[in-house]
Amino acid sequence: MVNSELVFPAEVECAHRVPVPPSKPFSEALKANLKETFFPDDPLRQFKNQPPLKKFTNGLQYLIPFLEWAPKYTLAYFKSDLIAGITIASLAIPQGISYAKLGNLPPILGLYSSFVPPLVYAMLGSSKDVAVGTVAVASLLIASMFSKEVSASQNPGLYLHLAFTATFFAGVFEAALGFLRLGFIVDFLSHATIVGFMGGAATVVCLQQLKGILGLEHFTTSTDLVSVMESVFTQTQKWRWESVLLGCCFLCFLLSTRYFGKVRPKYFWVSASAPLISVIFGSVLVYLTHAENHGVQVIGHLKKGLNPISVTNLVLSPPHMMLALKVGIITGIIALAEGIAVGRSFAMFKNYHIDGNKEMIAFGMMNIVGSFTSCYLTTGPFSRSAVNYNAGCKTAMSNVIMAMAVMITLLFLTPLFHYTPLVVLSAIIISAMLGLLDYEAAIHLWHVDKMDFFNCIAAYLGVVFCSVEIGLVLAVSISILRVLLFVARPRTTVLGNMPNSMIYRRMDQYPMAQCVPGVFIIQIDAPIYFANSSYLRERLSRWIDEEEDKIKDKGEDTLQYVILDMGAVGSIDTSGISMLGEVKKTLERRGLQLVLANPGSEVMKKLDKSKVLEEIGHAWIFLTVGEAVGACSFLLHTCKARTVSSVNSDVLAHDNIV
Amino acid sequence: MVNSELVFPAEVECAHRVPVPPSKPFSEALKANLKETFFPDDPLRQFKNQPPLKKFTNGLQYLIPFLEWAPKYTLAYFKSDLIAGITIASLAIPQGISYAKLGNLPPILGLYSSFVPPLVYAMLGSSKDVAVGTVAVASLLIASMFSKEVSASQNPGLYLHLAFTATFFAGVFEAALGFLRLGFIVDFLSHATIVGFMGGAATVVCLQQLKGILGLEHFTTSTDLVSVMESVFTQTQKWRWESVLLGCCFLCFLLSTRYFGKVRPKYFWVSASAPLISVIFGSVLVYLTHAENHGVQVIGHLKKGLNPISVTNLVLSPPHMMLALKVGIITGIIALAEGIAVGRSFAMFKNYHIDGNKEMIAFGMMNIVGSFTSCYLTTGPFSRSAVNYNAGCKTAMSNVIMAMAVMITLLFLTPLFHYTPLVVLSAIIISAMLGLLDYEAAIHLWHVDKMDFFNCIAAYLGVVFCSVEIGLVLAVSISILRVLLFVARPRTTVLGNMPNSMIYRRMDQYPMAQCVPGVFIIQIDAPIYFANSSYLRERLSRWIDEEEDKIKDKGEDTLQYVILDMGAVGSIDTSGISMLGEVKKTLERRGLQLVLANPGSEVMKKLDKSKVLEEIGHAWIFLTVGEAVGACSFLLHTCKARTVSSVNSDVLAHDNIV
Repeated sequence: MVNSELVFPAEVECAHRVPVPPSKPFSEALKANLKETFFPDDPLRQFKNQPPLKKFTNGLQYLIPFLEWAPKYTLAYFKSDLIAGITIASLAIPQGISYAKLGNLPPILGLYSSFVPPLVYAMLGSSKDVAVGTVAVASLLIASMFSKEVSASQNPGLYLHLAFTATFFAGVFEAALGFLRLGFIVDFLSHATIVGFMGGAATVVCLQQLKGILGLEHFTTSTDLVSVMESVFTQTQKWRWESVLLGCCFLCFLLSTRYFGKVRPKYFWVSASAPLISVIFGSVLVYLTHAENHGVQVIGHLKKGLNPISVTNLVLSPPHMMLALKVGIITGIIALAEGIAVGRSFAMFKNYHIDGNKEMIAFGMMNIVGSFTSCYLTTGPFSRSAVNYNAGCKTAMSNVIMAMAVMITLLFLTPLFHYTPLVVLSAIIISAMLGLLDYEAAIHLWHVDKMDFFNCIAAYLGVVFCSVEIGLVLAVSISILRVLLFVARPRTTVLGNMPNSMIYRRMDQYPMAQCVPGVFIIQIDAPIYFANSSYLRERLSRWIDEEEDKIKDKGEDTLQYVILDMGAVGSIDTSGISMLGEVKKTLERRGLQLVLANPGSEVMKKLDKSKVLEEIGHAWIFLTVGEAVGACSFLLHTCKARTVSSVNSDVLAHDNIV
Repeated sequence: MVNSELVFPAEVECAHRVPVPPSKPFSEALKANLKETFFPDDPLRQFKNQPPLKKFTNGLQYLIPFLEWAPKYTLAYFKSDLIAGITIASLAIPQGISYAKLGNLPPILGLYSSFVPPLVYAMLGSSKDVAVGTVAVASLLIASMFSKEVSASQNPGLYLHLAFTATFFAGVFEAALGFLRLGFIVDFLSHATIVGFMGGAATVVCLQQLKGILGLEHFTTSTDLVSVMESVFTQTQKWRWESVLLGCCFLCFLLSTRYFGKVRPKYFWVSASAPLISVIFGSVLVYLTHAENHGVQVIGHLKKGLNPISVTNLVLSPPHMMLALKVGIITGIIALAEGIAVGRSFAMFKNYHIDGNKEMIAFGMMNIVGSFTSCYLTTGPFSRSAVNYNAGCKTAMSNVIMAMAVMITLLFLTPLFHYTPLVVLSAIIISAMLGLLDYEAAIHLWHVDKMDFFNCIAAYLGVVFCSVEIGLVLAVSISILRVLLFVARPRTTVLGNMPNSMIYRRMDQYPMAQCVPGVFIIQIDAPIYFANSSYLRERLSRWIDEEEDKIKDKGEDTLQYVILDMGAVGSIDTSGISMLGEVKKTLERRGLQLVLANPGSEVMKKLDKSKVLEEIGHAWIFLTVGEAVGACSFLLHTCKARTVSSVNSDVLAHDNIV
């Protein structure tokens, strides 16, 4: 009986065959793929097998998480949230004013932005720990990107309206990402580049504060280190000692409370309330000494009253709309990256789940509503959320409490900030920014992954020496480039037999693993795509060249079988499949037999459909490397005298052997 | 004895431990990585262990492949190359003139470009089969990109000089890619998008030929389907029947010889010489009938003589230099992609090796020298190389023969082309372009990989309905996006036990694989990077949620161990490592134990350096899934009554159990 299939005799242990999976209808495969891509967390799982009413309430609770936790809300929760809310309010007020100044915006905007957005987030957000507010990096970006085209001092109205418009676009962009389930775009900002970018931005923000600390009136509009240093050291005669003294004192106070709060987490409130204490103390000092007449700049008049409506102020016509759109998208994605990362970290600490896409919708809605009510870009800043968490917040109610506290401030307490010296605000910003200089993370990156460290440093230097935008573009390009390099250069390793077992492992990792004579086993450690298939073809042929040279030097038996362990090839495309076909042909011409071990279902399906399976021969595909080696060794020993090609043709006529 | 390490009793078979690899010095690791990235083919391998003189001659031969094959050149080779050279020359002359017309360049440039560049390539190129010449797509791109800013009819001098400059920049770019070993950039144009892009370009080129076939004098400068159709059907009264008739006759002749040549590859020369026969026949016909006076446009006067020097004509000053640079880079990379792919394919047929980076240098040098001698962009076009291969070429000498034939034409035969009708050129272009419409490849893509098919169609439609540039940008973006999506959404699958073995395989692929009670095994099928670590964290937690639901429904034992099969995780970065740490913590809080099986050396090294290894516990890392399941089952059975946490703490004190 002559088989067209290669059949091994019973001595060769290969109990299992690798089947070709039945082909699924295209629509089904597409549906499964789309679900895996856009709904990996399967948000509708909770709706399965539920009565219609339950489905409806579940759906409502899914859309508005507030409805989920509000009914279960207890007095004990409220007590915790009250403390946390007041604590973060005491941080939010001075920080809000400082960051608004950083963005060249009216200081009152910082208070407005801590009133409306937290309320929206409390309804829609799924995190229990995120405290909503403005952030320094986005504020600085707004200032540096707008000031190139519109001057905040000469045209404050347009500048303000552009800031609202950018906030609106940022919100729309964030919500759109969430609705379209494209949240994974944020994942392409790697942790390493974020560490570098944030550190660089913190450095740049601190450098900008030299203006306030030194009491300078004229300052460069550039943010890079060289311009700032030039600006500072060409004006040494204009430095105000009163301002420097005040600034240093407050900075020392803030940093020492920060340090105390870090060492004793129980006394978190000391560091949390330090900025407010500084503001009060500084204001009283200026009021009493009339220092505002001696070179210490103060905030000045703040309008009493709640957020005015700004929906009619949005600039929705060219030429400025495009600028606002660009600023909105860039600041929106940065704010999103920070907010999502913060939400996820705290959710992990407390072991609950956060739906990234839902969070994006919440952030987006909060910014859209914010842009209608005189707020600028808000997100979930790390520092404020950490204080919230340490203060023992239980639900998003702490955001509501904060908003109430800010409301009271807006209604009654704004005159108190008239005498607040700007230098205190600078000290508050510097003290907050130093926390973003995460040099420990950079050292960790250096120890674990040099390439990640390099990314981090490149982003840092890009921000510090060029500009925040260039640094960001650099960071993103390096991240993307790294992904592409990862894909273009997958690892291939030679496998050897672990003594006394059927197990085959990487020989560079397990020195005890041994070669099998006449057989060469290579593992491909990544999916095979068009981007790496040429590389893999070249690399495989180099592996085989080197192995044949080695064998020739040692005078051993010649190589006859090349086994590819496909266990790690999770997916493959047409280029990858043709690469396998080409490798098969090249090996054949060199008198070598290609054997595949443990291919996945996708690989089998595509090999089958592209007819490459026929070329390779189904019989040369094995479930494990061990079984493949067993079969090859059997053939080598049975037919040592004959050449491989005649062996192979013999085996095809199975009964000739057994 | 209380161990800090978890130790399993002897009954649990786990013969091998997974060691932490010794850490290599940074410089060594960097060197190995750089080598893997830029020198995967190890071009210097042949120089190892050679005497200095041999090294020198080897080096010279490496740089100039001509020196390698020239000494071994025989008369038999020459005979073959002579036939092949004359055959491709008969194709090159009419095609060269046609493509130059397509690029709005003087027709003589087509002949110049088939003289100098083939000579350069014969010295430097490592392919034996590539036949050098101009290509239709690049010619069309030159016309469409330049004509937006410089009119070829109103300012022919500047237009010509810009074409030389673009060729120069293309050459520099190609050579630079080769020198910098960045050849893999070409791999990011996936085969699928190239099929679509080339098909689209061929369609567009054919559409442009309607001008020549219909004998129209005015024609749209846009290349998209809609504009061309509009242009054609608004001028129906200007169609010239003489031209149409002549065009259709020649097209029929060319297509039937093409078909004949395809069916009988032995008579390749019939289809190869058909264009030249058409040109001669057409010219004679026009000369005899004086059809040039009856609406049939002819080439007109062609200057006798060899290539004039054009090095002083390069436009190296703004504003036009930037345009030439842009056109040069875009056409350069397209030409490169075609040339490299052609070289590789034929090298595979004949089983010799091509160094992609060396080929790029050869293509680059040939274009730089070409731009100095009045040539425009050349590469290794598929059609001409296929004819060369079929004609039995043995070495690059066939290019030299072709160049000689073109030289003779330039010196003595140019007047013969005076009466060549343009419509014949159009027919030649159409007949060549139809070969690029690779609908069979598109059908193959549909069968094997729907996503690849989609890429291909998007590139095709982009080129046909928008423009060649937009189509190209679309094709590249889709390719890159696909890589990013691949990376962002790796596969995870559940493993089960293959009956009567210690083998664990994907349950969706092997229906006979069985679950192990109390243990859940997941395989991660891709490297873990920042781009997919959040996804993997969410996906893993969903897998576990679903499994727990299933177990609850069935009323089985609760889940206690989660085994991650890391065999397919070829590399990992810091985000991936922290993801594993977070998964460990999350599982711990749910009362589950994380177990790793078969991590690679990079994973082990980074786990160790980041201290995540300590958190997971070295004892919970096994060489195979089988051994991990064995250990978990042992713990489950020994201590069924106790809770997992107490079991684990007990095991820590090893002697309490045995």
